[in-house]
Amino acid sequence: MQQSEKITVNQLFKQITTLPNSGLGQNRLVYSSDWLQGQKLLIQFALKAGFQVTVDDYGNTYLDLLGNDQEQVIATGSHMDTVKNGGRFDGLYGVLGGLQAALNLRERFGISQKTIRVISFCEEEGSRFDATFSGSKHYARVAETNGLVDENGIKIENARSNAVNQLKQISGVNYDLPQLPQSFTELHVEQGNRLARNNISLGLVTAIVGQRRYRITVNGITNHAGTTLMTERHDALQATIKLINQFEVFASAVDPLLTFTVGELAVWPNTSNVIPGKVTFFIDCRHQNNELLDEFEKMMKNTIANLPDPLINVEFKRWVHDQPVILSSEMLAKNEKLAHKMGYSIMKLASGAGHDSEIMNRVVPTTMIFVPSINGVSHAPEENTKPEDLQRGVEFLTASLYQEAY
Amino acid sequence: MQQSEKITVNQLFKQITTLPNSGLGQNRLVYSSDWLQGQKLLIQFALKAGFQVTVDDYGNTYLDLLGNDQEQVIATGSHMDTVKNGGRFDGLYGVLGGLQAALNLRERFGISQKTIRVISFCEEEGSRFDATFSGSKHYARVAETNGLVDENGIKIENARSNAVNQLKQISGVNYDLPQLPQSFTELHVEQGNRLARNNISLGLVTAIVGQRRYRITVNGITNHAGTTLMTERHDALQATIKLINQFEVFASAVDPLLTFTVGELAVWPNTSNVIPGKVTFFIDCRHQNNELLDEFEKMMKNTIANLPDPLINVEFKRWVHDQPVILSSEMLAKNEKLAHKMGYSIMKLASGAGHDSEIMNRVVPTTMIFVPSINGVSHAPEENTKPEDLQRGVEFLTASLYQEAY
Repeated sequence: MQQSEKITVNQLFKQITTLPNSGLGQNRLVYSSDWLQGQKLLIQFALKAGFQVTVDDYGNTYLDLLGNDQEQVIATGSHMDTVKNGGRFDGLYGVLGGLQAALNLRERFGISQKTIRVISFCEEEGSRFDATFSGSKHYARVAETNGLVDENGIKIENARSNAVNQLKQISGVNYDLPQLPQSFTELHVEQGNRLARNNISLGLVTAIVGQRRYRITVNGITNHAGTTLMTERHDALQATIKLINQFEVFASAVDPLLTFTVGELAVWPNTSNVIPGKVTFFIDCRHQNNELLDEFEKMMKNTIANLPDPLINVEFKRWVHDQPVILSSEMLAKNEKLAHKMGYSIMKLASGAGHDSEIMNRVVPTTMIFVPSINGVSHAPEENTKPEDLQRGVEFLTASLYQEAY
Repeated sequence: MQQSEKITVNQLFKQITTLPNSGLGQNRLVYSSDWLQGQKLLIQFALKAGFQVTVDDYGNTYLDLLGNDQEQVIATGSHMDTVKNGGRFDGLYGVLGGLQAALNLRERFGISQKTIRVISFCEEEGSRFDATFSGSKHYARVAETNGLVDENGIKIENARSNAVNQLKQISGVNYDLPQLPQSFTELHVEQGNRLARNNISLGLVTAIVGQRRYRITVNGITNHAGTTLMTERHDALQATIKLINQFEVFASAVDPLLTFTVGELAVWPNTSNVIPGKVTFFIDCRHQNNELLDEFEKMMKNTIANLPDPLINVEFKRWVHDQPVILSSEMLAKNEKLAHKMGYSIMKLASGAGHDSEIMNRVVPTTMIFVPSINGVSHAPEENTKPEDLQRGVEFLTASLYQEAY
């Protein structure tokens, strides 16, 4: 890797992370002005560096370093968009890390046998429109995303065509939906604390957890907070607290890796001197093993069915049910062997967040590489990774892609 | 009691509880149109029945059945106002029950020795302006209530003078702030379930509970619900749930009569897939023994101080601290003896709600009589009391006032 090229990708990173709408946090919501600038800067960089650049009708951007065989393609990459007020590395690290790895390979080993494709997916976070992974879903031909409006009433089709038209017009850019690659490798920050806490260099992702979300409504009886004896109450909030308390105990008993979150809760009438008559709350729980999620769901249902107060009535509704995804075990095994050879400590782990890889995995062998996140913070401006960890991730991706492309 | 008079007070009750803004529930917020109609109907009834009627500059209405001695006055009564969507008996029962009792006495025993005053206080509930007991506070000369606006921006002074002007203009009404009576007896529905559940006819009120309200803010750390291990979380809602759960256990251990209510609770950012970073909740707790409230407060503070997670920070603020009020033990003892003589079962109990009696008790010997509330429901349209219980309460008040006035 030439020092000048390394600096150049770092400079591109600085340009993209200091666009006008970035303050403490990043704001590259899909098809927004910062997003458009980000894709443009990436395309211009890649064209100068000798990549063949293609944009599709969703604004996914494909940077191909052509090999001797242009029909055989291996791919890497991640997404350009961020959540509102997001971190600098979520998504962008996988795009620019892939770009750097491709440049490393060309620099060190010359033209590859297979073509190396670096993908910058348009959208993964679902933070502007009510849909996630729309970029990889389009490329993988598994789903189209249409008919949505953002919070300002802008239609996704209009936002999309406006942005894509500007990318298409860049001189040297092809407009097409490329064929699928033979494999996909995504480099990403962990967004959790398992690697950092254990001083592990790299995470090799075995699976992406299954996710279920529930909406629970507890109906009790509103009454006077001063005159109603404790034994005469049908307090919806006290019943809720006992349920959540019990659910959390179950969650840790079912498996320490099962995540259980009550992030949203509302009380009626929500007046300090009135016994609550109704509470609604949401549960988010995730695990890589679907049977454990079934088991936990059963325990929650039984707990509700066994509530001692017949005047407390509970509605339990599951509204998200995403199955766990097992990524390619062959690619995982190769990366494990490679890390051992390179002397990098690894942890095999499941991802608690969703990624483009779970979409790509439906159509091509897919693997993911995590680097440590400081304190595990993500989706926040404080998201960070040590420079040496960022660099180690890129070096490992370089070596991994070498095995596939040369 | 003549049948015709009894029917007449019942008819007045029906008129006042079917005013235009009453639907399922009552809406006689102070100085509102229904409130004004209620006071007018009461005044007109009293004038026809031979009472001397006085209105003061807050709209408190004093109905005097003059005795041989007009300087010696004993009083009974309650408040005309209701909460929004309130019950039919809270307040009005004490006013019309007092009216009926006075009529009973005149009918059965002729002119009394002392003057019997039936008071309809303008406001007790605090449901229109941010002040409670403004009527009895004015009469007792303990506090004036000024400078407040309702939710529509109407000033209390304007609402008050407009209403009072209309009451003053009724022919035969005096406009004055009368001298204080020698005693005050308030008849009221229990608003709790202790009498009904135990099949007790009457409650004799020993005290009005002390009341404390706390605002508690729990600060944790917001993070990703999918990628943050359970052991790495600083979840403000989970910490809150553990606190509330523990507080409720303590409350029942300190004393079964201590009421503990969390009626209001809010979560930030309140998003189903984000670990809550902040929760604010309110505690309302009441007991007639101030030392037990101190003890409970100390236990809450110690629990917070001993929270195991140093990254969870809790702010604890007491914003209401009303001392318990012990009502007249002499009047209580007389009523207890009287009930025994009349063969009525009684329970001596503390009131969990505030009443005009706690204000009157500061300046004159005061007592309260409760009748059972069906299912203990109050501040709701479902508030109800059996007709025989209502009548028994009035009979007992009649006998009690007889002892004082003849």
